[in-house]
Amino acid sequence: MILFNSDYTEGAHPDILRKLAATNLVQTAGYGEDEFCTEAREYIRQACNAPAAEVHFLVGGTLANMTVISAVLRPHQGVVSAESGHINLHETGAIESYGHKVLTLPSSDGKITAGQIEAAHKSHCSDEAFEHIVQPKMVYISHPSELGTLYTARELKDIRKVCDECGLYLFLDGARLGYGLCAPGTDVTLEMIAQICDVFYIGGTKVGALFGEAVVITNAGLQEDFRYIMKQKGGMLAKGRLLGIQFGELFRNGLYFEAAQHAIDLAMVLKEGVLAKGYRLFMDSDTNQQFIIADDVKVAVLKDKYGFTYWQRYDKSSSVIRICTSWATREEDIKQLLADL
Amino acid sequence: MILFNSDYTEGAHPDILRKLAATNLVQTAGYGEDEFCTEAREYIRQACNAPAAEVHFLVGGTLANMTVISAVLRPHQGVVSAESGHINLHETGAIESYGHKVLTLPSSDGKITAGQIEAAHKSHCSDEAFEHIVQPKMVYISHPSELGTLYTARELKDIRKVCDECGLYLFLDGARLGYGLCAPGTDVTLEMIAQICDVFYIGGTKVGALFGEAVVITNAGLQEDFRYIMKQKGGMLAKGRLLGIQFGELFRNGLYFEAAQHAIDLAMVLKEGVLAKGYRLFMDSDTNQQFIIADDVKVAVLKDKYGFTYWQRYDKSSSVIRICTSWATREEDIKQLLADL
Amino acid sequence: MILFNSDYTEGAHPDILRKLAATNLVQTAGYGEDEFCTEAREYIRQACNAPAAEVHFLVGGTLANMTVISAVLRPHQGVVSAESGHINLHETGAIESYGHKVLTLPSSDGKITAGQIEAAHKSHCSDEAFEHIVQPKMVYISHPSELGTLYTARELKDIRKVCDECGLYLFLDGARLGYGLCAPGTDVTLEMIAQICDVFYIGGTKVGALFGEAVVITNAGLQEDFRYIMKQKGGMLAKGRLLGIQFGELFRNGLYFEAAQHAIDLAMVLKEGVLAKGYRLFMDSDTNQQFIIADDVKVAVLKDKYGFTYWQRYDKSSSVIRICTSWATREEDIKQLLADL
Amino acid sequence: MILFNSDYTEGAHPDILRKLAATNLVQTAGYGEDEFCTEAREYIRQACNAPAAEVHFLVGGTLANMTVISAVLRPHQGVVSAESGHINLHETGAIESYGHKVLTLPSSDGKITAGQIEAAHKSHCSDEAFEHIVQPKMVYISHPSELGTLYTARELKDIRKVCDECGLYLFLDGARLGYGLCAPGTDVTLEMIAQICDVFYIGGTKVGALFGEAVVITNAGLQEDFRYIMKQKGGMLAKGRLLGIQFGELFRNGLYFEAAQHAIDLAMVLKEGVLAKGYRLFMDSDTNQQFIIADDVKVAVLKDKYGFTYWQRYDKSSSVIRICTSWATREEDIKQLLADL
Repeated sequence: MILFNSDYTEGAHPDILRKLAATNLVQTAGYGEDEFCTEAREYIRQACNAPAAEVHFLVGGTLANMTVISAVLRPHQGVVSAESGHINLHETGAIESYGHKVLTLPSSDGKITAGQIEAAHKSHCSDEAFEHIVQPKMVYISHPSELGTLYTARELKDIRKVCDECGLYLFLDGARLGYGLCAPGTDVTLEMIAQICDVFYIGGTKVGALFGEAVVITNAGLQEDFRYIMKQKGGMLAKGRLLGIQFGELFRNGLYFEAAQHAIDLAMVLKEGVLAKGYRLFMDSDTNQQFIIADDVKVAVLKDKYGFTYWQRYDKSSSVIRICTSWATREEDIKQLLADL
Repeated sequence: MILFNSDYTEGAHPDILRKLAATNLVQTAGYGEDEFCTEAREYIRQACNAPAAEVHFLVGGTLANMTVISAVLRPHQGVVSAESGHINLHETGAIESYGHKVLTLPSSDGKITAGQIEAAHKSHCSDEAFEHIVQPKMVYISHPSELGTLYTARELKDIRKVCDECGLYLFLDGARLGYGLCAPGTDVTLEMIAQICDVFYIGGTKVGALFGEAVVITNAGLQEDFRYIMKQKGGMLAKGRLLGIQFGELFRNGLYFEAAQHAIDLAMVLKEGVLAKGYRLFMDSDTNQQFIIADDVKVAVLKDKYGFTYWQRYDKSSSVIRICTSWATREEDIKQLLADL
Repeated sequence: MILFNSDYTEGAHPDILRKLAATNLVQTAGYGEDEFCTEAREYIRQACNAPAAEVHFLVGGTLANMTVISAVLRPHQGVVSAESGHINLHETGAIESYGHKVLTLPSSDGKITAGQIEAAHKSHCSDEAFEHIVQPKMVYISHPSELGTLYTARELKDIRKVCDECGLYLFLDGARLGYGLCAPGTDVTLEMIAQICDVFYIGGTKVGALFGEAVVITNAGLQEDFRYIMKQKGGMLAKGRLLGIQFGELFRNGLYFEAAQHAIDLAMVLKEGVLAKGYRLFMDSDTNQQFIIADDVKVAVLKDKYGFTYWQRYDKSSSVIRICTSWATREEDIKQLLADL
Repeated sequence: MILFNSDYTEGAHPDILRKLAATNLVQTAGYGEDEFCTEAREYIRQACNAPAAEVHFLVGGTLANMTVISAVLRPHQGVVSAESGHINLHETGAIESYGHKVLTLPSSDGKITAGQIEAAHKSHCSDEAFEHIVQPKMVYISHPSELGTLYTARELKDIRKVCDECGLYLFLDGARLGYGLCAPGTDVTLEMIAQICDVFYIGGTKVGALFGEAVVITNAGLQEDFRYIMKQKGGMLAKGRLLGIQFGELFRNGLYFEAAQHAIDLAMVLKEGVLAKGYRLFMDSDTNQQFIIADDVKVAVLKDKYGFTYWQRYDKSSSVIRICTSWATREEDIKQLLADL
């Protein structure tokens, strides 16, 4: 069986494992107050060109989302998200478990628009009963989205503008950020994201690390006491060094982008291959998640040999399946898959 | 500098790192549904002689505590703990963040007694205003305690008896459980703990793993839907395999106990050494945390060469310092420390 | 100005005020443990033909909703509701503030169907990632709905059947229950509601009381420790007698139904009147809320003389307005309104 | 039976009932946006000499406490209180239910000191592990305390000073404030309280109203969006007018102080009477709660004729009982009680 179910079917990029082994007996302080973390934070600030940003390392995406949102919002405030947003659909109500409503906007491609956000804000403000309704205060976007799609620089700037006008914070979930930044044709850079967002995170779990997400808080007004909230939410790793070592390795010499580029290259091979074979795509994705429409007989056959995600029914006789590539995907496996499709 | 601040100043036992490297490219399912986790769960059930227990792997102790307590209690119920309990003092209100009050009992040695628990229960039930007061429903004990002390088998059985009589659940925080089980003279076994507790966990972070705690739920009535709660609390690791691999390694052939025994042996060398030198101990601990009373001049001198935890003032001219050993402590460092004391 | 904005623009039915005055100096125990509450509970159990039900008095609807839902659900469980449900739209996230997600179903008339509920349950159970998704565990319906519509006996029974099959609790918000039970043509009775629901409440605030909702818990499995939860949520009134006196008055001799019937009669006068005048209704309601489509010029004129709720835009030149009647509405005011329409 | 159990055994001061009846059919807006509330807010601002204060009406003390604390604190922050504080002991964990730890200070008389508060703050700040510990951010005091005792002006000013130095908010629970302000010898005024506190409330439930507490927010930084939080917590009464009418009546012409003075006068008659008879007091209270030490035989005899609160055992053969007076207490009943003591 070859697994394309997700971008976290293997361990970590070998360089990371090597570094963990090499530093294993170095003694450090706990809880992220070690020199590896200090160094990694500095690499990330440089990569973002955000010298005043605070960088915090958390173990996973759900923890990152709930910690950021809980740190920023007051109890009556909610977070605006696409219906398909990870915080809305796939975190077992983690955001609600800390008291906040996810205010959803419809989306067919995983993205939301500046216009939708502005309308949601205005609708709240102009409602006679506004105090009876959760106040939108933060916008949550995923880049790439849960459907592999990407915002353009223009779209992000428009969202920022609306956030400024409406007094909203902008939070970007970058669980797969590396794949977005390496996608062909994107005009979005890490530096731009750091400029546009109040807070965002750079995903490691899905881009080469064993685990870990680097939360970057660029809005100084949101930096206070973040470590208390991390600890309270269970997100302050005792051996915080593990996160520092991994992100240090990923950002010292561009390993993060190398790993992501590998996945993107193979995803494009796959995409072009299936299009050439006459398949249709459910979503036009330039990132490492490819959503392919295949007839049910073919899907059944593939199942014996490959792991992949059954996404949804497409029509009576065909379905959408999701294929993920990662830093670890082998070119020969993609070629084999193409041959079998 | 030689650090004795805690039992998590290094990475992981080398066997664990080797195993992580060896399995790195094996493809698995995520979220703890892989074969490594399955295998590790079975090892732990065997070590506990608890074939019907559910075993779940969480990343850290605070997450383990908050997930277990949130999974078990209804909103109006609280958890009884020593004042010095980790959930009360050092988790930034994680338990309260999910709505539950920690009901504290005074304790000078980190332990609580069956009598105290019974009195707290009776006091609640007999209060006219009982519905206005948080209902005690779970008992939280740490073994070893935060002060390095250990319950005896008799004490644990008495606590179990009171819990049965009063309708209370018993939850044991075993963040340092290995050190307790290997302490000289203890009559408490892992099997006994599994019999006596409704739920407990076996700490990996502080006993040789990179990170990880194995929650063991022996009370079938508390097993339902635990994985939902794990996910909601941010405690379901995407690459759950990392926990399975580590706990598999620790429990396949007794590495967990080996690692703990090493720390205990060195802690006993230290304890006997300081007693022989005329020092007094703040707490008589047979585990890997040693609490030594030293005069302030000596403490200041040691600081230049060693890392340790300043625990508290003892009297006008002396203080309590905590020295931790671990699986990674070197005998020569303990000897040097003794020489310098 | 004559106000038709809501059914709570006046104080209380005069009989209630009289009773409050007459009993004012009687000394009683607090917190609902007085004889007035005992008596009122018994009247309600009789009216429901539910001798084993527990009856609790809460001050308002939001408190009733949050207390019931928090008492029943575990942290990972959510409550299924129409998008237009009060708990979803107009309680500032009260349900989420206690950690629970509201799982919404689309609805054009304020009601949800057994089929929708079953589909939501099945969709959850059959999802590969079900543990990553909030578990539907309770169904929330409003009767009358927020749009004035009513379930039929058949619809309620079908919902009950699905709840049984799917292991879901059924909770009915009866903030305006009196108006539903007195609506022309309804085949739903209070006794039937008590049989069909696990828990529901009988609204007093909007049907003649100064304030107060009577929560009826018929499912014995949900009765344990409810008063603790009430107290924790701030819902246990010190002078609980005030609720006992009011509900005693409302249910001793049918005052509750008399008061509701008065509102319904006038609502039907209004409904027939506007239809006769050629107006269209936005929603066909047989209860005390009437949703009338009127052109914007007319709406502007009415505004100078009447209070009402602007509901929503209907088309370019007309809007929907909501007119509420209550126990206190005067026939002459309805006639005047009809004349002015 | 004559009840002295509490200060809420009767309904409301007759003037309040009369006013409720007189205004019963006046139509108003809901949720506290009516003219009665506007007027009452202004009376209270005048009584406090705090023209810029926000005044909000809540139904009860627990709701007031949880709403204020939840509105002010961030998730990792806790509220400092005497162990005997109502929020700590008698609200079934309401504060924790919204995520906040109550940080208790020992107290034998229900009061805490500036020195204790300063020490708690410093202890937190100087702890190496401060981010692992709940951050003290608000101070909660009750005036009168739960034991009937009163702060002096000096004590309050010292607490304010420490709060300023330590960056803490000061919140005063005035559930029985009227009785405190009318106590013989007190040098604390309502105006002073408004100057010293960031937020406090004036209790109505226990001082003549049917129910209701007036929250006064003098710190402008804490005023934003308070009504959203009120609604979310279930504390925004639909017929908010009821609170406006009651507080209007209480503060238009000093009825609040009249009612309280009556209770104090009778409490002093009782206090002097029991002292003259040779009884000892458990707590020297100048307010409406009197704590009398009586031998158990006497207590048993009194029980047949009077209601009172059994407070605690005093020694082998005697107990502490609490007698409350209120606006409704009759002089003849106090005299009878004295005769029977």
